[in-house]
Amino acid sequence: MKHLLEEIRHNPLLWLLVFVPVLFVVAHRAPESHTLLFVLSVLAIVPLAALLSHATESVAAKTGDAVGGLLNATLGNLTELVIAITALRAGQYMLVKASLAGAIVTNVLFMLGVSFLLGGLKHHVQEFNRANARLQAGLLFLATIALLVPSLVAGGDVTETSPTSLRLSLGLALLLIVGYGLGMLFSLKTHRELFASAEASGEEEAPWPIGLALATLGVVTVVVALVSEIFVESVQVAAESFGMTPAFVGFIVVALVGGAAEMASSFSGARKNRLDLSVGIALGSATQIALFVAPVLVLLSHVIGPAPMDLQFWPGAVVMMLVATMTASVVTSGGRSAWFLGVLAIMVYAIFAMTLYVLPPQG
Amino acid sequence: MKHLLEEIRHNPLLWLLVFVPVLFVVAHRAPESHTLLFVLSVLAIVPLAALLSHATESVAAKTGDAVGGLLNATLGNLTELVIAITALRAGQYMLVKASLAGAIVTNVLFMLGVSFLLGGLKHHVQEFNRANARLQAGLLFLATIALLVPSLVAGGDVTETSPTSLRLSLGLALLLIVGYGLGMLFSLKTHRELFASAEASGEEEAPWPIGLALATLGVVTVVVALVSEIFVESVQVAAESFGMTPAFVGFIVVALVGGAAEMASSFSGARKNRLDLSVGIALGSATQIALFVAPVLVLLSHVIGPAPMDLQFWPGAVVMMLVATMTASVVTSGGRSAWFLGVLAIMVYAIFAMTLYVLPPQG
Amino acid sequence: MKHLLEEIRHNPLLWLLVFVPVLFVVAHRAPESHTLLFVLSVLAIVPLAALLSHATESVAAKTGDAVGGLLNATLGNLTELVIAITALRAGQYMLVKASLAGAIVTNVLFMLGVSFLLGGLKHHVQEFNRANARLQAGLLFLATIALLVPSLVAGGDVTETSPTSLRLSLGLALLLIVGYGLGMLFSLKTHRELFASAEASGEEEAPWPIGLALATLGVVTVVVALVSEIFVESVQVAAESFGMTPAFVGFIVVALVGGAAEMASSFSGARKNRLDLSVGIALGSATQIALFVAPVLVLLSHVIGPAPMDLQFWPGAVVMMLVATMTASVVTSGGRSAWFLGVLAIMVYAIFAMTLYVLPPQG
Repeated sequence: MKHLLEEIRHNPLLWLLVFVPVLFVVAHRAPESHTLLFVLSVLAIVPLAALLSHATESVAAKTGDAVGGLLNATLGNLTELVIAITALRAGQYMLVKASLAGAIVTNVLFMLGVSFLLGGLKHHVQEFNRANARLQAGLLFLATIALLVPSLVAGGDVTETSPTSLRLSLGLALLLIVGYGLGMLFSLKTHRELFASAEASGEEEAPWPIGLALATLGVVTVVVALVSEIFVESVQVAAESFGMTPAFVGFIVVALVGGAAEMASSFSGARKNRLDLSVGIALGSATQIALFVAPVLVLLSHVIGPAPMDLQFWPGAVVMMLVATMTASVVTSGGRSAWFLGVLAIMVYAIFAMTLYVLPPQG
Repeated sequence: MKHLLEEIRHNPLLWLLVFVPVLFVVAHRAPESHTLLFVLSVLAIVPLAALLSHATESVAAKTGDAVGGLLNATLGNLTELVIAITALRAGQYMLVKASLAGAIVTNVLFMLGVSFLLGGLKHHVQEFNRANARLQAGLLFLATIALLVPSLVAGGDVTETSPTSLRLSLGLALLLIVGYGLGMLFSLKTHRELFASAEASGEEEAPWPIGLALATLGVVTVVVALVSEIFVESVQVAAESFGMTPAFVGFIVVALVGGAAEMASSFSGARKNRLDLSVGIALGSATQIALFVAPVLVLLSHVIGPAPMDLQFWPGAVVMMLVATMTASVVTSGGRSAWFLGVLAIMVYAIFAMTLYVLPPQG
Repeated sequence: MKHLLEEIRHNPLLWLLVFVPVLFVVAHRAPESHTLLFVLSVLAIVPLAALLSHATESVAAKTGDAVGGLLNATLGNLTELVIAITALRAGQYMLVKASLAGAIVTNVLFMLGVSFLLGGLKHHVQEFNRANARLQAGLLFLATIALLVPSLVAGGDVTETSPTSLRLSLGLALLLIVGYGLGMLFSLKTHRELFASAEASGEEEAPWPIGLALATLGVVTVVVALVSEIFVESVQVAAESFGMTPAFVGFIVVALVGGAAEMASSFSGARKNRLDLSVGIALGSATQIALFVAPVLVLLSHVIGPAPMDLQFWPGAVVMMLVATMTASVVTSGGRSAWFLGVLAIMVYAIFAMTLYVLPPQG
């Protein structure tokens, strides 16, 4: 508990935790003030995400690399997972998919781009381990193909949720999970020496004691689930009152909120000239969502959703994921970074954000 | 003849030759048992392809590099060519195109992927000559553009076989053949030193005497033509009885059967840490089909087909070729291979196979 | 004046200047003979473009790198800009866009391809600075995404000129101009040492005195504007009489004419084994058009056009720009060139030209 309080004192982001009780009070007293609830839940999720991220890292630091990797896969994107499961149970598949696709695109373009930019403003040229960037880009490429090919090969036939489409989605979901597992086996076990400098990056922050970490994980996950429920209920009404399209909210706002904590770590790594850490967080997190979280949600939807969810995304979302994958490949292919590469990635992200902001809503 | 018998004794694949006479007997006695004929013709084509491949290599070994390259271009994909010509004469253009596109995709993804995987399971990291992989990927890129651009630029107007489309297809076919010829000139003549280690790979198996090789070529080509005729007649009825879509049969089954012999050579090369041989066979064979066999069939269709065939492929096929080309570029760009790169290519292939397997048939 | 006459004596291209007065006489006497006016205006634009290009380089040589870069951005594609403004004022937005897209594609594929081919026929293997090629390819990628994403993400909704589309186009235009400015800041200021050998290329030709250069700039710009007006009026009628589609004229003919002078410099650089000069001219010019000229025209259309112009291109044009960008990336990624890479780029260009030549006109 002393660790936790000290952490809170040193990390101003965690002061936002005060909004968690405020949110619950407002949700109880004024359940119809959607805009206020939306703002409060955004403010409350940010510090919770930071706590989760820190607790996960502490648990991972205690275990070996292989187990730590698995833990990261399962817990690293816990905020996104909990938000998505909440939306899944509410049957809001459009929001689930928008938030997954948005998280991938935001991690690849915004998180990586700002890291490159901030790092590049401080350091003239930065080097990083190309092997990891190439592995992550390859996995993202695989996931994009799995989303892209069925709809293109089948013409218009798969986009409606037909039994065929559901069968194919199940198969593809399993394939992606296997691909993700093999990728971890490759980078953490059989060829770990190729990914060396990326490995060294976990040691930085003094980890919490394992008991505190596990307790935090448990408690915070429950709180995040409660907050997310309020968030998912309020987001669409609130967005309209701000004049935002639902696509913009799902893609940009939710993704930036859900990734706040990881972004803080990634940006700080870049400033400290530890770009392998930044690349690992940004691309690794995107890969986890694409090859682990999204497929697991498809499998879960057969158990907990009102109806099974398929793996077909709105075509515009697939295009953005494909472009994000290509951009990641372009900006990381040299193994060296300077500020302008960050600008490139951010500008591609800005093109997406502008397009989504002005567009009429999509089914 | 002694060489031939010894070859048959040492190569268990050739024992399948026994199915050739069996097939002809069944085709004569029970011409309506399509499923049986389909299975028998598959079993008969595999050893014939192996014989053709071996005879071609023996002829190529006697001649110089330039002539050998030309021979390889003309004879290397002889099985595919004979199957395709048989289907062309029957006017089954959909099958012709599916088998060509399927052969390209199967060579690039499955043959290369399994080679990388098998090689990588035995050897930790394998190196290969990047120059050849880049040349082949560049040629495949050119072919994909030639198939992709007309339909995208023209909107829907070119996909029906109009006189305009036929004129354009003729022009593009000639352009691809010229591009293929210049590529050979570049890699075998003007800049052969850049492709050095790939050159050294032809010496391995003791070649047959030239007379035996030429005689085998002549006889086996005729037999393959006869077997292919039965295969093409039986494949569609048989596929339905297996519950396979025609697209799956054309893309996956025919391509795996037609490439059986080359796959054996490619996999064995990878196990022996001669990855240049594997890359050369897998990508080189795909390039031959895309830039030589397919265009030649378009030209031939004006002479022997019931009607001229154009170079327009079903959009899904073009997408798969484009993705295969991009995958080839991704997995070969480093000039080094490990088992996971093979897994990546195989998984992309699996996505295609799963999609084709569950989809309703396409025109 | 002595400089100018000497220049004309030494540069046979400039002898074509005689067609300028001829054109004006014919335009006055026989304003309806469109085919003759088309041919004469083509012949007149070529030497004027050469003069403009030379005068611009002379002015740039007097100033520092940063200012020189800005001058190049503003003046380097002056011919294209003047042609486009003339068409813009006439409300011929289709022609404006076709000529911009055609200039990009022609510079990237034809100018770069022929440079690699001509250089490669004389020199076995040529090296060039990869950093500049990668920067230009990155900028082109950004521009292509800005043109591609809105229409793909929005489905069919943005392609008509709606207020939403115009708002988005304004935003994207500003974003591209900022991206271009930052790219110049990066390559000319903060990281100029990475682009070293490309810098050295401006010194070659003895520059004109600054007074002559500025006077030439002023006079020739006015003349080009007058000639362009005749060209834009005559081109569509003339093209039909030659049996060319308007798309072929806008994309291929106008682009080859407008780029004639730059091509001469680029090809001559390649023959002299100064490939950095060729890459800088070909890709740099394409980047200028995509990220500076086209956005500026969108902004200008709000002031001088009969109606605002958006940044949406005909889908086929976007596809060709995307393919051109990918080709540029493929052929320049190694930092080394040989003749076959030039052939590859030229063949992609030939596929475009053939497709546009046979196609029915597009809206």
